[in-house]
Amino acid sequence: MTRTLSNRITTLTPGGSDGWEVFYRARQMAEAGEDVIELTIGEHDIRTAPDILSAMHDAARGGHTGYAAVPGTTALRDTVAARIADRTGVPTTRDNILVTAGGQAGLFAAQHAVCDEGDRALFIDPYYTTYPGTIRGVGALPVPVLARPEQGFQPNRADIEAAAHGAKSLLINTPNNPTGAVYSRATLEGIAAACAAHDLWLISDEVYDTQVWEGDHLSPRALPDMADRTLVVGSMSKSHAMTGSRVGWVCGPEEVIDHLLNLATHTTYGVPGYIQDAAVFALNQGVAAEEKVAAPFRRRRAIAHDLLARQNTVRAAPAQGAMYVMLDIRATGLSGSEFAHRLLDEAGIAVMPGDSFGAGGAGHVRVAMTVEDAAFEAAMTRLLDFAATVRG
Amino acid sequence: MTRTLSNRITTLTPGGSDGWEVFYRARQMAEAGEDVIELTIGEHDIRTAPDILSAMHDAARGGHTGYAAVPGTTALRDTVAARIADRTGVPTTRDNILVTAGGQAGLFAAQHAVCDEGDRALFIDPYYTTYPGTIRGVGALPVPVLARPEQGFQPNRADIEAAAHGAKSLLINTPNNPTGAVYSRATLEGIAAACAAHDLWLISDEVYDTQVWEGDHLSPRALPDMADRTLVVGSMSKSHAMTGSRVGWVCGPEEVIDHLLNLATHTTYGVPGYIQDAAVFALNQGVAAEEKVAAPFRRRRAIAHDLLARQNTVRAAPAQGAMYVMLDIRATGLSGSEFAHRLLDEAGIAVMPGDSFGAGGAGHVRVAMTVEDAAFEAAMTRLLDFAATVRG
Repeated sequence: MTRTLSNRITTLTPGGSDGWEVFYRARQMAEAGEDVIELTIGEHDIRTAPDILSAMHDAARGGHTGYAAVPGTTALRDTVAARIADRTGVPTTRDNILVTAGGQAGLFAAQHAVCDEGDRALFIDPYYTTYPGTIRGVGALPVPVLARPEQGFQPNRADIEAAAHGAKSLLINTPNNPTGAVYSRATLEGIAAACAAHDLWLISDEVYDTQVWEGDHLSPRALPDMADRTLVVGSMSKSHAMTGSRVGWVCGPEEVIDHLLNLATHTTYGVPGYIQDAAVFALNQGVAAEEKVAAPFRRRRAIAHDLLARQNTVRAAPAQGAMYVMLDIRATGLSGSEFAHRLLDEAGIAVMPGDSFGAGGAGHVRVAMTVEDAAFEAAMTRLLDFAATVRG
Repeated sequence: MTRTLSNRITTLTPGGSDGWEVFYRARQMAEAGEDVIELTIGEHDIRTAPDILSAMHDAARGGHTGYAAVPGTTALRDTVAARIADRTGVPTTRDNILVTAGGQAGLFAAQHAVCDEGDRALFIDPYYTTYPGTIRGVGALPVPVLARPEQGFQPNRADIEAAAHGAKSLLINTPNNPTGAVYSRATLEGIAAACAAHDLWLISDEVYDTQVWEGDHLSPRALPDMADRTLVVGSMSKSHAMTGSRVGWVCGPEEVIDHLLNLATHTTYGVPGYIQDAAVFALNQGVAAEEKVAAPFRRRRAIAHDLLARQNTVRAAPAQGAMYVMLDIRATGLSGSEFAHRLLDEAGIAVMPGDSFGAGGAGHVRVAMTVEDAAFEAAMTRLLDFAATVRG
């Protein structure tokens, strides 16, 4: 066509391989009837709990089907604020909360709020797949900062500062997808110092905050002087197996939330009220309900560690949190992509090449712990046997 | 705070009066127990039909609670495509459809797809409140083109062409909010000619396409050579009283939809699958269900016309479609804003000043026909009595 599309949308993602070939091949093989175990996508093997769905239906039948307040219902904003205040100790009210159409909408809104066209926006590599595109989507320039496997994928202050000149923001994710790292207090203090030194906004993606297997999740918003420069992105997706319901939030300074509300008016015009009511119901079930959703991943992580302990080809990055195990497969002599493709062809198991999450993931594959325990154990066993055979 | 927010978000809407003061005052008066009839917001006085909500609940309980395909479910894309093809005659398949989180998300995505930072984007004034902010939200420059009351608020080619130099896009809305105009074939042919002459993208907001009281709705995508340059925004909100469910779509060329899918991955990551299943159910109820939702507005428009015919102070703009009557109150000597404020104080009726929809709405007020018939008749009667008294 002669008229052109925006440069912003046509360059949102780079051309060429996007690292999802293994995923798509696995889907095709499964659809063709082949026996494939898919450990690719970060989605629970359970569905949203029936009591949450009943709460949603009750709200809808009760008439909560009209436009909901654009910043979110008072009930959900209050509930999220109280949960954050309780877990972080940071005073938080509804005025600090904007309800969004899922965590991804929160990430987009946060980047939009702080970056103008051409601004540099830092993010930690390896990274969740949408991060660079989200930054490009607001016209900014994504700048990766490597987190090193030899440091357990904990980013360090020096690396951030080396990239920070002229940057507006830094995007982090703890517990981390894809690496499973949970950022330590020391890591977060280094991040906070870098943000202060370069006057960066910190966008903190904490959607896996209920999936912590080692240590504790610490929100950087709770560090000294960080509440005024931190935008926390949260979601019901991972904590309550509500991935498809697309309900999340941004927590930040009131002034930022005021502007984000204005943006929300022009992007989504709010989130369905009955879904927000369901989210309030779910959050009111307390920690036990969250632990129930997290428990399968905790079990499978133990299964993975037991199997890994019995061999010495594949080494796990510290699987401290989130629903993934990041495996260092460099001893096989294969790249992550080669390993993943051959594992699919020769063992019928689909995992994600680490480099599909950025240069920092090279030599690794990400295993999503998202099939039932016995199948997961069988798949991990086959994966490790495959690795040992390749190594010879 | 020292670090700055993006210029794009802080200038999304201009400061000062936004024309919603009457709305907020009315809400406060109603909450304080005063007897106020609110005719401000474009939302049905009925709720989403129970059978649609049951279909939603069945889908959710059936397990459709995980991530839905980002461009929309195949079922909904096929259903929307078939409906559009049937009503416009333009060949349309699922590859022409992206499901969005409501019509507003479709508007934002469409502007994002065609406008880069600094591009000029035309829209017709009077306009739906979010239009300029949506354009600013993607960094573009909103340029109003006046539709004149003496031409029934039908925009004309010459006015568009006078503003079109260097523009990338034109945003129109038919049936129109706030004016109630339904664009004629001649109007749309003029628009198409202006788009061709200046190689503009046409963004056509057709969310009121099931609410037509005079003439027929014509989609400009069906005009010769327009399918390749037109992005139609549609929604379940107005047609099926599903405002709060936030489900709509963009229909356009496959190449554009491919890019919009990529944007959706980075903004909302899809729309809840159970809501899409409910939308399929609703659309499959056919035209009768849509007419049932539209019927109250058709009745109230007749009520308004009967009352207007008996007096000669207030004149209606042709109320050809949508859930509003735009009233020319210039004979009272008051501005739209003065009229609306005094009407609220002296008659307890809240309507929107026409100039809250842009300069083109000056001297008018917009009446939303969104209360039950008897209350609507009483409110219109009081409004017309008030106007006659003011005129003296």
